[in-house]
Amino acid sequence: MTTQQLFEQIKKKQSFLCIGLDVDMSKIPAHLLGEQDPIFSFNKAIIDATHDLAVSYKPNIAFYEAYGIKGWESLKKTIDYINTNYPELYTIADAKRGDIGNTASMYAKAFFEDMSFDSVTVAPYMGKDSVEPFLAFEDKHTILLALTSNQGAFDFQTQLVGTKPMYQVVLEKSQTYANAENLMYVVGATKAEYFKEIRAIVPNNFLLVPGVGAQGGNLQDVCKYGLNDQVGLLINSSRGIIYASSGSDFKEKAREQALLLQREMSEILKGRL
Amino acid sequence: MTTQQLFEQIKKKQSFLCIGLDVDMSKIPAHLLGEQDPIFSFNKAIIDATHDLAVSYKPNIAFYEAYGIKGWESLKKTIDYINTNYPELYTIADAKRGDIGNTASMYAKAFFEDMSFDSVTVAPYMGKDSVEPFLAFEDKHTILLALTSNQGAFDFQTQLVGTKPMYQVVLEKSQTYANAENLMYVVGATKAEYFKEIRAIVPNNFLLVPGVGAQGGNLQDVCKYGLNDQVGLLINSSRGIIYASSGSDFKEKAREQALLLQREMSEILKGRL
Repeated sequence: MTTQQLFEQIKKKQSFLCIGLDVDMSKIPAHLLGEQDPIFSFNKAIIDATHDLAVSYKPNIAFYEAYGIKGWESLKKTIDYINTNYPELYTIADAKRGDIGNTASMYAKAFFEDMSFDSVTVAPYMGKDSVEPFLAFEDKHTILLALTSNQGAFDFQTQLVGTKPMYQVVLEKSQTYANAENLMYVVGATKAEYFKEIRAIVPNNFLLVPGVGAQGGNLQDVCKYGLNDQVGLLINSSRGIIYASSGSDFKEKAREQALLLQREMSEILKGRL
Repeated sequence: MTTQQLFEQIKKKQSFLCIGLDVDMSKIPAHLLGEQDPIFSFNKAIIDATHDLAVSYKPNIAFYEAYGIKGWESLKKTIDYINTNYPELYTIADAKRGDIGNTASMYAKAFFEDMSFDSVTVAPYMGKDSVEPFLAFEDKHTILLALTSNQGAFDFQTQLVGTKPMYQVVLEKSQTYANAENLMYVVGATKAEYFKEIRAIVPNNFLLVPGVGAQGGNLQDVCKYGLNDQVGLLINSSRGIIYASSGSDFKEKAREQALLLQREMSEILKGRL
């Protein structure tokens, strides 16, 4: 999917909501556990109940890997279900991969070709030749970790390299990579005050923003500094939506939570688009 | 496996060789392509032919992921084959994962429990809480990326934070993590001159060293500065061994290449153990 197609969808739905599918067997409603593939059944129900309110879905790959081959089957069924039934939705493989060139190409092949995701999250530590194999895919996005929403972000990402924190060095250097127009960045919502500086370095790139909700970030604060004239934000919420209820009403409660966020987004977008 | 058990195996075999299983369908001997699971058949043949010369095997997870569910099946069969037939071998999931705490726990579960690997490679960019969930597993190792062997290593890893390159900051900080005795580090062989400084910071940890062979690193140079009194090195070779021949003699040629390295290692260890 192109950035323009994503933007068109955002305008149509008045939403820049991404729903994170971090699906843990110990947290899904008990009545689903008897199904043949409980994780896929759960995902299907959540997607069906919220697809008109969200523009993007982001399976967190670790949660599928943890169940081995069965987990990968659930993941494949989920992405196939989205691509078949809701092709307008933008899909993100939250995989945080990163390795040398020939290995990075294999990861890109896994997520872009075998799984047909629109984008994949990638870690920057190994530098240019670990990122460019992902960027080489046309109409796909590479979402590079810049500033994450966890406490450990202060260990290395905010360390000063000269006068600049490392995450700003990552933003600047990555803008020189081949096909940098295919880049998006992960920027955690728990640090809204950083968005102003980040937008000065990457005014045009989309930012994937985790940490609204369960991790304590505030939507208004993020939008104040993060929005650009193509919106330029995908706000992710995972647990706050998918685990809104652990009962048989989990679909309805997930929709309620998604609707609250979509309405807030619609208000924020008023007069801007 | 404990570090002591790994050391015992190194002494017994007079080898600190790790064989990387970066198995690409386009590179394995054509006569295997008709088999039911060509990747597993290839791995099994390589392991059977070299298990007495190497102490460790390192599947590069990307190469399995790229083939989707079938690839994960090949990977699972490979690790099960090693654990059943050669339980003394030390296994490394070269996955370079890294994510926030609850997600990192899921990755740890995938590789340590579902797959029963002895260790997994992890990226440091997201900091302490992305690494500690791996370190929490008893008798397992977390192999943290410090200085990698690719050109992109100079993008961020060697950038100065104050007076120290980032990879040294990663080494120092990670030594303060809970269960830091379960840490090993990835240090690329293409930069042998760095080993002296690295050993000053982490005298006791094992270092996993890719880049000998195909990537141009030299074994003697690495050992000169990298060896410690428990050897403390695992030298990885992938393509130089597993693709030594693309014909029906691939097993014999792989053994020849492994034997060359093992003999060189045996010479280096003389008088040291």
